[in-house]
Amino acid sequence: MNEIQSSSPQSRGPADHSVRDQIVEAAGEHFSHYGYEKTTVSDLAKAIGFSKAYIYKFFDSKQAIGEAICAQCLSKIIAAADEAVAGAITPTEKFRQLFKVLVATSVNLVFNDRKLHDIAAHGAGEKWPSVRAYAEHIRQILTEIVREGRESGEFERKTPLDETVLAIDLVMQPYVNPLLLQYNLDLVEEAPARLSNLVLRSLAP
Amino acid sequence: MNEIQSSSPQSRGPADHSVRDQIVEAAGEHFSHYGYEKTTVSDLAKAIGFSKAYIYKFFDSKQAIGEAICAQCLSKIIAAADEAVAGAITPTEKFRQLFKVLVATSVNLVFNDRKLHDIAAHGAGEKWPSVRAYAEHIRQILTEIVREGRESGEFERKTPLDETVLAIDLVMQPYVNPLLLQYNLDLVEEAPARLSNLVLRSLAP
Repeated sequence: MNEIQSSSPQSRGPADHSVRDQIVEAAGEHFSHYGYEKTTVSDLAKAIGFSKAYIYKFFDSKQAIGEAICAQCLSKIIAAADEAVAGAITPTEKFRQLFKVLVATSVNLVFNDRKLHDIAAHGAGEKWPSVRAYAEHIRQILTEIVREGRESGEFERKTPLDETVLAIDLVMQPYVNPLLLQYNLDLVEEAPARLSNLVLRSLAP
Repeated sequence: MNEIQSSSPQSRGPADHSVRDQIVEAAGEHFSHYGYEKTTVSDLAKAIGFSKAYIYKFFDSKQAIGEAICAQCLSKIIAAADEAVAGAITPTEKFRQLFKVLVATSVNLVFNDRKLHDIAAHGAGEKWPSVRAYAEHIRQILTEIVREGRESGEFERKTPLDETVLAIDLVMQPYVNPLLLQYNLDLVEEAPARLSNLVLRSLAP
């Protein structure tokens, strides 16, 4: 479940795969310095030292490269969240960890470390497949946590499951959607805990 | 409580006041056509038919005009919310109305009618006094509603009041803060009701 595919996976031989990875790696570096929006495939080709035609052998467009970077980054966020949830015992603790780790990892990977917010925000705005898969994965984890909490009697059961999940998902969106997160960075310290408490009060039986 | 002051109220005689209003009105029209960011005071002076120096008699800067427009717009949103809350009987209904009317009026005034999102989003991003006063006013109404619901036994009383209010405020932010609202316009039909239900579940005694 950890692997989020970009829209053009293009399966080729192992050597091609490594060139692909090389392009993605170099493009990630380049974008994080010069910005995704402002960079063209020509700029990228020059910077990497490949011809433009060679890059086009592997990626149809700049967006395809951006999507591959975005998918890789979101996969890491999801992996961190999955691990945190797996390490927690109760559904209450699983939910807290999910929210906390999603936000902390997003801030770290997208804003602090590689400055990929440009690509991630663009992808979120354009609803790229990797971003949609990421959102869908979060809803799946949420559904499992709420279902488990209902079964163990930790959470209330009157509200339809999908209504509960969709509402919690809406509460988390401003902090887990990269497009919105960039405007909420001054709240990332306090908001996840405060909102987790509110959500858990709403889940009380 | 309905009047949100801009940062440079500048009290002058009644004639001056009417010129001020005239500038604000014309600037609002101009900004909504050409955008706040792209317009200079010179453009504005030309469009209104006043000299730049004359405009500067009333406003220190473009931002001061923007703030006056923003304050006027936010006052209207607050007035609509106050009226809706006053017309509702129970704290539950007051909260639903508050959220619903804040969002509906914001969408209408800021995005549909006069296309002032440019100014409002700029003001929210820069934390203009009018935007801070608006946010503070919403927290005040919220506090009153929660307090009333606690007194009547409709809402739980275990959680500290300010913790409850701050968390609900965080839930509402993405839809009542003009900077964030612009990215959530596709959710304005369903999100306020869905989130109101979640908040009200969290308030259950």
